[in-house]
Amino acid sequence: MATRRDLIAALSQAVGNEAVIWRPEDVRAYEYDGTVETRLPHAVVLPETAEQVAAVVAACNLLQVPITPRGAGTGLSGGAVARKRGVVISTARMNRIIQIDPINRLAVVQPGVANLAVSLAAASSGLFYAPDPSSQKACTIGGNVAENAGGPHCLALGVTTNHVLAMEVVTADGTLVRLGSPTPDIGPGYDLRGAFIGSEGTLGIVTEVTLRLLPLPASIVTLLAVFDTIEQASESVSAIIGAGLVPAAIEMMDRVTLQAAEAGLQCGYPPDAGAVLLVEVDGIADIVEEQAGRIRAECLEHGAMEVRIAEDDEERERLWKGRKGAIGALGRIAPNYYILDGVVPRSRLVETMAVVERVSAAYNLPIANVFHAGDGNLHPCVLFDDREPGARQRVLEAGEAIMRACIDAGGTLSGEHGIGYEKQQFMGWLYSDEDMENMERLRPVFGNEGLFNPCKILPGGTGCGEMAHDAAAIRAAGQDAYV
Amino acid sequence: MATRRDLIAALSQAVGNEAVIWRPEDVRAYEYDGTVETRLPHAVVLPETAEQVAAVVAACNLLQVPITPRGAGTGLSGGAVARKRGVVISTARMNRIIQIDPINRLAVVQPGVANLAVSLAAASSGLFYAPDPSSQKACTIGGNVAENAGGPHCLALGVTTNHVLAMEVVTADGTLVRLGSPTPDIGPGYDLRGAFIGSEGTLGIVTEVTLRLLPLPASIVTLLAVFDTIEQASESVSAIIGAGLVPAAIEMMDRVTLQAAEAGLQCGYPPDAGAVLLVEVDGIADIVEEQAGRIRAECLEHGAMEVRIAEDDEERERLWKGRKGAIGALGRIAPNYYILDGVVPRSRLVETMAVVERVSAAYNLPIANVFHAGDGNLHPCVLFDDREPGARQRVLEAGEAIMRACIDAGGTLSGEHGIGYEKQQFMGWLYSDEDMENMERLRPVFGNEGLFNPCKILPGGTGCGEMAHDAAAIRAAGQDAYV
Repeated sequence: MATRRDLIAALSQAVGNEAVIWRPEDVRAYEYDGTVETRLPHAVVLPETAEQVAAVVAACNLLQVPITPRGAGTGLSGGAVARKRGVVISTARMNRIIQIDPINRLAVVQPGVANLAVSLAAASSGLFYAPDPSSQKACTIGGNVAENAGGPHCLALGVTTNHVLAMEVVTADGTLVRLGSPTPDIGPGYDLRGAFIGSEGTLGIVTEVTLRLLPLPASIVTLLAVFDTIEQASESVSAIIGAGLVPAAIEMMDRVTLQAAEAGLQCGYPPDAGAVLLVEVDGIADIVEEQAGRIRAECLEHGAMEVRIAEDDEERERLWKGRKGAIGALGRIAPNYYILDGVVPRSRLVETMAVVERVSAAYNLPIANVFHAGDGNLHPCVLFDDREPGARQRVLEAGEAIMRACIDAGGTLSGEHGIGYEKQQFMGWLYSDEDMENMERLRPVFGNEGLFNPCKILPGGTGCGEMAHDAAAIRAAGQDAYV
Repeated sequence: MATRRDLIAALSQAVGNEAVIWRPEDVRAYEYDGTVETRLPHAVVLPETAEQVAAVVAACNLLQVPITPRGAGTGLSGGAVARKRGVVISTARMNRIIQIDPINRLAVVQPGVANLAVSLAAASSGLFYAPDPSSQKACTIGGNVAENAGGPHCLALGVTTNHVLAMEVVTADGTLVRLGSPTPDIGPGYDLRGAFIGSEGTLGIVTEVTLRLLPLPASIVTLLAVFDTIEQASESVSAIIGAGLVPAAIEMMDRVTLQAAEAGLQCGYPPDAGAVLLVEVDGIADIVEEQAGRIRAECLEHGAMEVRIAEDDEERERLWKGRKGAIGALGRIAPNYYILDGVVPRSRLVETMAVVERVSAAYNLPIANVFHAGDGNLHPCVLFDDREPGARQRVLEAGEAIMRACIDAGGTLSGEHGIGYEKQQFMGWLYSDEDMENMERLRPVFGNEGLFNPCKILPGGTGCGEMAHDAAAIRAAGQDAYV
């Protein structure tokens, strides 16, 4: 077993002294991501080049130390938490946009570049990068690749895997390889690019990404439709989709969310509505006007009290600010929240929302709903106070009941947040043992024998048998535990 | 080593006597696909259920007999040719459309359903299936999955992998598994769906596919822009894309193709043009009109002699009939043709077309060009007479020179036809040994230890070491060779 000293020396040789963090007070900042559980890594490295990343992975493999890649730490399923401690590789210093190529509509970026930074850099060429998670100001392209991230505008345009053409990757065994091809057709041979995207940082760490850029729409119309009930809003979603309209985004917020967002962000939401839909259409002016008119009519026909159209960019931005900041604003209502991520077929939206309401009542927990209604991707947000005895257990049970309802409705366990370690135990609902064995077999393809981001996605899985210590015990042992 | 009698008995037990073809005169119909080389299988089975497919795969694995899946046999890179003989599994009897679900916009189909049949079945619900290979009347969804097929309308809408949500698959080791999820987000866990699509029938055989359907466009405008030279047409493509327009399709045909198509199909193409672009825009009427006007202007500005707009559905269909039947029509010019499939970045289109012209002159072989110009996917079609001594060798050398030019321009080896056995030897131009070893490692994930569609995609590859007999020797040995 390697000593802590061995490890620090090997890491320093790989990336230089100044790029290794190992003092307890410094490492503490890397023990969490957007989930509740935390785990303290032994060390954190901040490489600047792909070669340094490869050297770190090789050194850790030699010393048999677990590795966990980390982008901005905004993930919601624990993907960046170092469950077996060891070394966290942060992409924070690999944050350069290498090229914007307007003719071939490509961007080449390092993994630590923030999602929104790509669109900002491409804007002067009339282009943008489509996937837009709510955390897009902070979350990184590397993390987006790991989670196959979505976002409100992925309804019409598709998620991350549809917009990543090629990647340079350090695989779990420390090899530097290229996957995919910077052409619109992805390239021949097995689609290891596709297999890697959404693997939640368990197959390797991306060191460069070639992204597809799209032309900015000439015109955008943003509508806010106000309803008395969630049911009316859900039925309007079905009606809009059923009418053959494909808006750029259809987002829903319920009463709890609206009140919190309005109180925290002053975005002009109606304070007494039961639900709103935020719908956006884009394209060239004439068509956008016509589509907006038809969407307005569908909403009014299905019970909308009012359908407001944003009059200018400022009003549009205010409406989106509320949506993108809604989860944060829920902190005004309760000290803690637990955000779920489930998907149901669009045709089962109304009944699943009713289940969420029943679960809220049965467990006596307020649940706020803010989600991508157009593609049936729910984000029920369970509000609670972690200091209250037994609260967390009740929250987890309520969460499980809602996830179960999504599966029973023919849906799935995650739309965009990933499985991480949060939902491993539910994977058996969706996949047979054979399915999961097939998935497990993908790990050695990229050289992961159990050390690379262990104990994620699959309920058993290589390298996870020895999980013993709980977080508190490890935290108590702190920096002095053996590596 | 199993005897022929053992094999036929085992297959008959798996699928019934009447679904096993083994007489030489019957098997002969399955020795080819759309490429030049042929190979005679020992037997062909026509299963009707997934369970029968699994039983056939298990029986072949037990007897150590190679397996090759086959759709309609329209593939252009040899994917359905049984290179090591053994058993061909045809999906011809698995040709049922199980469900069209208009609310969730899904189709559930068996693998032997023809591509076009899906759109025809969905039309009454106002929906269609987007990928549209030129062979769409014949080619099957199972084959489309294997090759990650594209088509003219994939420019705006993406290729097969963007439209397949879930699959039931018999893996190479005979296990029946489900991949993906029938929700817009594909589903959590490793994307084995993504890894399987485009694997050219080497990882298993698909037995059911859940497809995403899209709303039919309300309005379509089809333009035919006529040019003196390929260069003008290529520059117009760059100008259209550069202007931020995203047509549904941009297809190019050169002089040789135009003359053959016109002579064979009477589709109203100008007989003395150097090149034409067939451009289509779709959506709602107003916007389509405006886009068509801008495309027309770009073409005229870049040297078009004339830009014609199809006046009605009949004229539109005639224009497309020429495009989709162009390759077949080339048979009028020469008894044989060899169609290539390469991709270059859009910005390198003009210079690569010039290389194709130089290669044509250097090898003294007419080359027709008909291709997806919008995404840089070239299909140079080398015309020759196979009876002429040395002709085939010259054709292959010319093809290699063109593929090399695509790679040198930063492009890739295949846009949609696959590598098969046609271009295995070029994979090293694009991928390092490590890249290819990583790809090779995907095979055992699906249980392929070398018997499942052997000697495809990768230049070496499991089970290919013993390739010895050439096609002629095997054909001479015929049905009496050992299995």
